[in-house]
Amino acid sequence: MAFAGDSSRRKFFKRAGVAAGSALLTANQIWAAEHGENLPPNIPSWMQQTGTGVGAAPYGSPSEYEKDAIRRTVPWLTATPISSVSFSPLQSLQGIITPSSLHFERHHSGIPNIDPEEHRLMIHGLCGNPLVLTMDDLVRFPSVSEIRFIECPANGGMEWRGPQMEALQFTHGMISCSEWTGVRLSTLLAEVGVDPKAKWVLAEGADGAAMARSIPLDKALNDVIVAYAQNGERIRPEQGYPLRLVNPGWEGNTSIKWLRRLELGEKPWHLREETSKYTDLMPDGRARRFTWVQETNSVVTSVCPENSLKSRGYHELEGVAWSGRGKIKQVDISFDGGFSWKEAKLKGLVLDKALTRFSLDWSWDGSPALIQSRAIDDTGYVQPTLAQLREVRGVNSIYHKNSIHTWQVLATGEVKNVQNT
Amino acid sequence: MAFAGDSSRRKFFKRAGVAAGSALLTANQIWAAEHGENLPPNIPSWMQQTGTGVGAAPYGSPSEYEKDAIRRTVPWLTATPISSVSFSPLQSLQGIITPSSLHFERHHSGIPNIDPEEHRLMIHGLCGNPLVLTMDDLVRFPSVSEIRFIECPANGGMEWRGPQMEALQFTHGMISCSEWTGVRLSTLLAEVGVDPKAKWVLAEGADGAAMARSIPLDKALNDVIVAYAQNGERIRPEQGYPLRLVNPGWEGNTSIKWLRRLELGEKPWHLREETSKYTDLMPDGRARRFTWVQETNSVVTSVCPENSLKSRGYHELEGVAWSGRGKIKQVDISFDGGFSWKEAKLKGLVLDKALTRFSLDWSWDGSPALIQSRAIDDTGYVQPTLAQLREVRGVNSIYHKNSIHTWQVLATGEVKNVQNT
Repeated sequence: MAFAGDSSRRKFFKRAGVAAGSALLTANQIWAAEHGENLPPNIPSWMQQTGTGVGAAPYGSPSEYEKDAIRRTVPWLTATPISSVSFSPLQSLQGIITPSSLHFERHHSGIPNIDPEEHRLMIHGLCGNPLVLTMDDLVRFPSVSEIRFIECPANGGMEWRGPQMEALQFTHGMISCSEWTGVRLSTLLAEVGVDPKAKWVLAEGADGAAMARSIPLDKALNDVIVAYAQNGERIRPEQGYPLRLVNPGWEGNTSIKWLRRLELGEKPWHLREETSKYTDLMPDGRARRFTWVQETNSVVTSVCPENSLKSRGYHELEGVAWSGRGKIKQVDISFDGGFSWKEAKLKGLVLDKALTRFSLDWSWDGSPALIQSRAIDDTGYVQPTLAQLREVRGVNSIYHKNSIHTWQVLATGEVKNVQNT
Repeated sequence: MAFAGDSSRRKFFKRAGVAAGSALLTANQIWAAEHGENLPPNIPSWMQQTGTGVGAAPYGSPSEYEKDAIRRTVPWLTATPISSVSFSPLQSLQGIITPSSLHFERHHSGIPNIDPEEHRLMIHGLCGNPLVLTMDDLVRFPSVSEIRFIECPANGGMEWRGPQMEALQFTHGMISCSEWTGVRLSTLLAEVGVDPKAKWVLAEGADGAAMARSIPLDKALNDVIVAYAQNGERIRPEQGYPLRLVNPGWEGNTSIKWLRRLELGEKPWHLREETSKYTDLMPDGRARRFTWVQETNSVVTSVCPENSLKSRGYHELEGVAWSGRGKIKQVDISFDGGFSWKEAKLKGLVLDKALTRFSLDWSWDGSPALIQSRAIDDTGYVQPTLAQLREVRGVNSIYHKNSIHTWQVLATGEVKNVQNT
């Protein structure tokens, strides 16, 4: 007897002749053991009653069984939760959209609770017609909606000297990706009329820290968005409600949250957050400044300390890659710590300055492995090894650690964060 | 003195020489009146204190000022909330992603509370190797992530005889769009080996209604996803947690939620939901059946009963269009009830069977207007007028009302739901 698909389509899990490691065999066996029959399944309790009606949750929330998919903090990392960070659970996420509820956080003076009716954006300095805009004003301008990542430049920064964090959530969880909607900054700058002498824009937030950064006018006129919506709805409080800058591909803290002021000037402002902080101390004692671009990076997410291997056989090895310079062009995977590489498949949408999923079919035979991913963007930039990065940068940096990451798979299926030199 | 941008870039709001209707003038005037000065703005109270630290909300939620962006129900529409519907607030949404918390709901026996450890998917019938799969089994298969709309075929169904609902949320709110992740149904069918005699697939849910539909094998092998994630996280309970079918472009109720059983058979099952319901009663008393595709549709969202016009001058007229057959190719806008049309711009991503944003620059001079949008998809299908639809379908239908919608703008700026014949 012939079955369509048996020959023309690939099977991922063979049941005949495979002993250990077949999840499907196990499933059928468990079912049979539990219920004394193979097919059909019994009628579960939730089918024997009516459920919750509509209207119970005008604004919905996840299943009670998904309590593990949350942002997490590292208490020892900062002196106070007011100026601290929470990490996205990359190990639980799928696709390229980060749910707004799980977008990583980084605050410098906590989350202000802003009344949008009272909020104003002032645009002033070297321009013809300074403006103070209400939120009602802002939403009347023509808008754009774009899927872009935002990444803290300190992402991975705890690991310059070697592995510290036994969790993907903490090694890479300061990146998230959303559909942002707002007005192009270039549209607003045209409205105020930029003085030819102006070369920089100051962006300042309405938090207690008045977090501010200097942004070159070229970038400001390019792809920056003054955003009021995230993933369809108004921006979340911790993401800058009611208004933030989205500065695609650049250090997350240039995407000023709770945006209240844009000033046009001739020179950068040399603010605390671009001198004392968000600079890279080099081996010779000097500091790199204005290192804005979040360079090409990637990490395997389906196999990581939180996602150990439970059985041998087929696994879709999956991860995310991103580049602040443009689109991801290629991702390679190594199972032997970088000696040999296989090209992964890019999955779904491949967008400019957005998370990009990659995957590779893999059959785990139970051997130990050193899994790495290496991303290449459409400018040709190749994600470096940690050794290559240290050669240039030393080990005093906090920011911009985008090196190839290594997960060690043990024979038990456990996964460790290791350094591969 | 010349300002860059004054000549090369367009200004949307002229402040000199414009009296009434300039929102920006108003903003500056309000500010001056409130604060006794124009620039710079004062230091708001939330900048004079620290805010909420990280860790306070491991799973975030919207600002307290956004309580209006919620799903809403129409109590008189159904006998019980157990078998009812809630509507997405399209009037508040931006971009093409619907936040999972605001995805419309349609339940036939309420939302079951399913333990994912206990949930099983059985695939059986005319196949070589019937299977019972756990959730752990399912997530091991290779996955896809795709942005697709789901629309209830009853969307707009209250208005076959004319306008009933004075709100966009209720005239069109049974459509939402998410990034869905899961296993292609074709992958699972290859795993069980489809018998050549099989021509149909039954999909059954694990709710109290055991909601089920018959789906032709051709469609099942095409683009259907057995999905476990929505917008990055696991599917919400009201969207089928832990597992649902996503049947792109087809009637929402064929995207069976809480999916527990797939059966391969020779003929359709002629179930309640494809005979008594989800069929279209024609003028001659006969009923159309298996009218699966959600035909091309569109609606203006930035101007609607909930979004009245508050001032004259520039407005970005915006809306959403979609087609169950493929991509949106063109959207036209009329301001005079369909006598003349202007082509709108398609904004952002234009994806297969996904919400697509369109927009048109518009300067409102205070005159009454009859605003319509008309979408055309890449198969050449043109969204019909209500008159054209009624010519074929009469007025006894509930489902598949995809006709051109009319918003009447009054001189006051109020917006009414009217029928334009």
